[in-house]
Amino acid sequence: MQKLLESLVEKHRPAAREGKVAEYIPELAKQDSRLLGVAVVNPKGDVHAAGAYRTRFTLQSISKLISLMVALMDHGEERVFAKVGMEPTGDPFHSLYKLEITEEAKPLNPMINAGAIVVSSLIRGKSVEERAERVIQLVREMADNPEIDMNRAVYRSERDTADRNRALAYFLKGCGAIDDVEETLDVYFRQCSICVDCIDLARMGLCLAQNGVTLRGKRVIPGDIARLVKTFMVTCGMYNASGEFAIRVGIPAKSGVSGGILALVPGRMGIGVFGPALDKKGNSITGIRLLEDFSKKLGLSIF
Amino acid sequence: MQKLLESLVEKHRPAAREGKVAEYIPELAKQDSRLLGVAVVNPKGDVHAAGAYRTRFTLQSISKLISLMVALMDHGEERVFAKVGMEPTGDPFHSLYKLEITEEAKPLNPMINAGAIVVSSLIRGKSVEERAERVIQLVREMADNPEIDMNRAVYRSERDTADRNRALAYFLKGCGAIDDVEETLDVYFRQCSICVDCIDLARMGLCLAQNGVTLRGKRVIPGDIARLVKTFMVTCGMYNASGEFAIRVGIPAKSGVSGGILALVPGRMGIGVFGPALDKKGNSITGIRLLEDFSKKLGLSIF
Amino acid sequence: MQKLLESLVEKHRPAAREGKVAEYIPELAKQDSRLLGVAVVNPKGDVHAAGAYRTRFTLQSISKLISLMVALMDHGEERVFAKVGMEPTGDPFHSLYKLEITEEAKPLNPMINAGAIVVSSLIRGKSVEERAERVIQLVREMADNPEIDMNRAVYRSERDTADRNRALAYFLKGCGAIDDVEETLDVYFRQCSICVDCIDLARMGLCLAQNGVTLRGKRVIPGDIARLVKTFMVTCGMYNASGEFAIRVGIPAKSGVSGGILALVPGRMGIGVFGPALDKKGNSITGIRLLEDFSKKLGLSIF
Amino acid sequence: MQKLLESLVEKHRPAAREGKVAEYIPELAKQDSRLLGVAVVNPKGDVHAAGAYRTRFTLQSISKLISLMVALMDHGEERVFAKVGMEPTGDPFHSLYKLEITEEAKPLNPMINAGAIVVSSLIRGKSVEERAERVIQLVREMADNPEIDMNRAVYRSERDTADRNRALAYFLKGCGAIDDVEETLDVYFRQCSICVDCIDLARMGLCLAQNGVTLRGKRVIPGDIARLVKTFMVTCGMYNASGEFAIRVGIPAKSGVSGGILALVPGRMGIGVFGPALDKKGNSITGIRLLEDFSKKLGLSIF
Repeated sequence: MQKLLESLVEKHRPAAREGKVAEYIPELAKQDSRLLGVAVVNPKGDVHAAGAYRTRFTLQSISKLISLMVALMDHGEERVFAKVGMEPTGDPFHSLYKLEITEEAKPLNPMINAGAIVVSSLIRGKSVEERAERVIQLVREMADNPEIDMNRAVYRSERDTADRNRALAYFLKGCGAIDDVEETLDVYFRQCSICVDCIDLARMGLCLAQNGVTLRGKRVIPGDIARLVKTFMVTCGMYNASGEFAIRVGIPAKSGVSGGILALVPGRMGIGVFGPALDKKGNSITGIRLLEDFSKKLGLSIF
Repeated sequence: MQKLLESLVEKHRPAAREGKVAEYIPELAKQDSRLLGVAVVNPKGDVHAAGAYRTRFTLQSISKLISLMVALMDHGEERVFAKVGMEPTGDPFHSLYKLEITEEAKPLNPMINAGAIVVSSLIRGKSVEERAERVIQLVREMADNPEIDMNRAVYRSERDTADRNRALAYFLKGCGAIDDVEETLDVYFRQCSICVDCIDLARMGLCLAQNGVTLRGKRVIPGDIARLVKTFMVTCGMYNASGEFAIRVGIPAKSGVSGGILALVPGRMGIGVFGPALDKKGNSITGIRLLEDFSKKLGLSIF
Repeated sequence: MQKLLESLVEKHRPAAREGKVAEYIPELAKQDSRLLGVAVVNPKGDVHAAGAYRTRFTLQSISKLISLMVALMDHGEERVFAKVGMEPTGDPFHSLYKLEITEEAKPLNPMINAGAIVVSSLIRGKSVEERAERVIQLVREMADNPEIDMNRAVYRSERDTADRNRALAYFLKGCGAIDDVEETLDVYFRQCSICVDCIDLARMGLCLAQNGVTLRGKRVIPGDIARLVKTFMVTCGMYNASGEFAIRVGIPAKSGVSGGILALVPGRMGIGVFGPALDKKGNSITGIRLLEDFSKKLGLSIF
Repeated sequence: MQKLLESLVEKHRPAAREGKVAEYIPELAKQDSRLLGVAVVNPKGDVHAAGAYRTRFTLQSISKLISLMVALMDHGEERVFAKVGMEPTGDPFHSLYKLEITEEAKPLNPMINAGAIVVSSLIRGKSVEERAERVIQLVREMADNPEIDMNRAVYRSERDTADRNRALAYFLKGCGAIDDVEETLDVYFRQCSICVDCIDLARMGLCLAQNGVTLRGKRVIPGDIARLVKTFMVTCGMYNASGEFAIRVGIPAKSGVSGGILALVPGRMGIGVFGPALDKKGNSITGIRLLEDFSKKLGLSIF
């Protein structure tokens, strides 16, 4: 496994040239686009890792999984899915037009920005800090790493430049889908800026692969919620490239514009990948290729 | 003329029951939906008026004409129309989706909210107050009424509830079409809350009917800009009912969600109407009927 | 006038290089893109013309005016406008998506293809030939030229290649907006292929400029229908460049993808232009420039 | 298993009242909306069935799986997916607007009508009959039932009423995505009208559950194609309710507007369901509930 991971990193790292780092968030634009790292953790706790697996990066859209789980634990499926749908969209993650043309103030799923903003509005807590802290806390538990915290520079950078997300949030408020724009976005930007490395991601993946039970055997997520979230990873986890990823790679995964991908093989392993050079749809260009190669070599597709 | 106006007010006032006042701006929701007023001014200065012609109301979208003229005087046609188009849209005034699906950060025309926000961003001045004051000043000059000012309660009400306009403004900022959301919107809300009555509107209409020269003979708008604005009144002045209004009434007109309509007959008269009960597209339901009747009785259509 | 027209043709002909002939209809693609012609007729019958004013071309979208008048004479305003709207759209002439996203089987106006197809379905007659013949007959009467007929090669060429129009027609049939696709399209293609020259167009324009009365003083169109059609020419006559044309030129006009433009100055003159090099929106690139120059030189704008 | 199936049929049959049979195809409108049947086949060949499992119905959209497999065997992945995408859309199956607004003549996936029409155009054969026969032949082999054939009344009914599919096909032809509308649609309507019962569907499902090997052990589909098709079943198999079905049921499935659903549990069983009362998205209302209950009782979700 160790050798396989090292060879995959070597093989796919050059493809970084074909992509580029997210530029609309100034802090993310500073990342070194050439990096590529991967870590794999199995249920026995064996860790294999290669490349830039110790480089830290922010969760970005990967946090949509975590906030969805917190909201589901807070309110249950029925209330959450009264406010956000379950359907993939085929549109870019920051798209807005469907909210207008369908005249329904219900984002199609919680993995696009509009849906994730609605989910963040549902997280309970006395303050924005407390609400964000609850998301961070679940990340710590899933990764079994109490030191995980947010990256304040990225948080501020996002907060100050998030025009499109503010457009989405005000549109949603205008439709009655959320109550408070700045508070909701503050929770959202905080969760996006949670900072991890590939090993953290791999442990989080293992927790989902074990239906909510961590490496140390602690249940931190109810089984049905873990299952539900894995399903969203398959149908909408890779933005509007999810369908192709399901066909070519075939494992539950969620990407972020920082270049991270949290993936897993049910019952068998958690996987963390980091490669900040992105393709046009916002996914790690090297990360996707590494995962496709890895999945095909080991026959990991769930299909 | 006096009798005609009085009979038209009597005849069309009952239709107010079929409409309702704008409710998304709390201050506008307080208006008495049953009111209907009209004033007509001719080049000799004769004023005829009937009904609630002395009731004051805010310009709302009628101010889009005025800010467009200020921006054109500040920058010239070429620069303004590099940022906003000249085409009617067929969509509601607060629509956003076309900006996304055409991937062009250029609102189709300056009479829809997105376009008017871009226009407001172009008005010169050292501060928001000064920029808005320049719009108010042109209104005063057109109406020959130095007492015209903004209604601060409506201004604050709009500023605090304008979710959809903020969504538009952040979307436009995200595309690079405007620089500062809150400053631009502040100018925009101020111009929308300029407070007039039917006689003011009629005098403003006369000024346009005389291609920029007021009742007292003062040129306050260059002739080519007055002409250009009258053209927009015909093609996009009545929201996405402009085409029907052109056919049924046939005179340049611009409506606002306060229930006001500024209309004119080139060279012959300025017309101000106020009827706050709106139809589904946001136009005064009684105002449109009164104008259609008036236009047909006197054969005023320019077509 | 004669000298003016000749100088305008010379001045604007070179711009043909910036456009190109319609290529999606094979017969139209054969036209010489460098041609430019213009004819003007006044109420006294004086004809001035320059350039390729004797070259024959097909009406294409200009026929939408004629079929609308026939349908209005057949059914009256109320029935026709129950099936097709009065609003400009901002979209390309062959656009379909708004029919789907608004879920209303009512094209926004009769000057886009979808609307014109619905109008063609309303023209009465015992056969397709008779229905088309009624449109041709009105063209003959307006132009006072009994020899006008359709160009069969263009008709067949359109009929055999009209994929997008067939898509529109089947979509409309699926919504219940028309009954028979091939019959309706056959009327539509026949009217599009009516063959005229600039002098014919200018006489047709004069007939509208005189509210339905021909050069020889014969009323061939009711006055209110002529007025209505002139209004559509201003709001939607130049595809999704109508708003700009109203501002820059300011006279009622209707273009076709053959390169023809029928224009008029109310009460004063009819104008026929032919320049087959088209801009991206489907209007004659030389024709628009010539008309803008002509209108500005003579101060013809109705605004 | 037998008792379970019988109890599920009894329990869920009454929900048929909440849906209705497809009405836009006259022959389908004749179906008895109260029927509900199910059949399950395991790798040992045990068949369990209940309710209307012997009633015959047409494949409709279920045939999109089969034609995709034939096209993939004819051309390989690369060529097929150059013409049709892999992404779920969130839109209704007969939607067209995205083809226009994205200006890309590539339907988002082969499970929506636009995509399936493109796929049908790729199936090789000397005639329409031969091309359709190849699809039917693969159905026969998967179901191990040489008597399967098309229902000619349904075929003719679809062919004669398919306005929206013709609109899609002409639009696609206009974009260059297909060459011949009527031939392509003829193949498409023929494949849609292939007639089966629940046991046939269950055997076809088992063939996919065994990655392309039939009950009798015959390989009729390459393994990688079977896997690919199962992935599409998960991401886009249940129209724009696929995301919700993945969460609530969690097994690969494909529905048709006849009320049939082909489903499977990888390696374990094939499932055929028939319940012609449809919900608003076009899926069998009783069929979905039965499958959800069945999946939860036996813990079949792949997630």
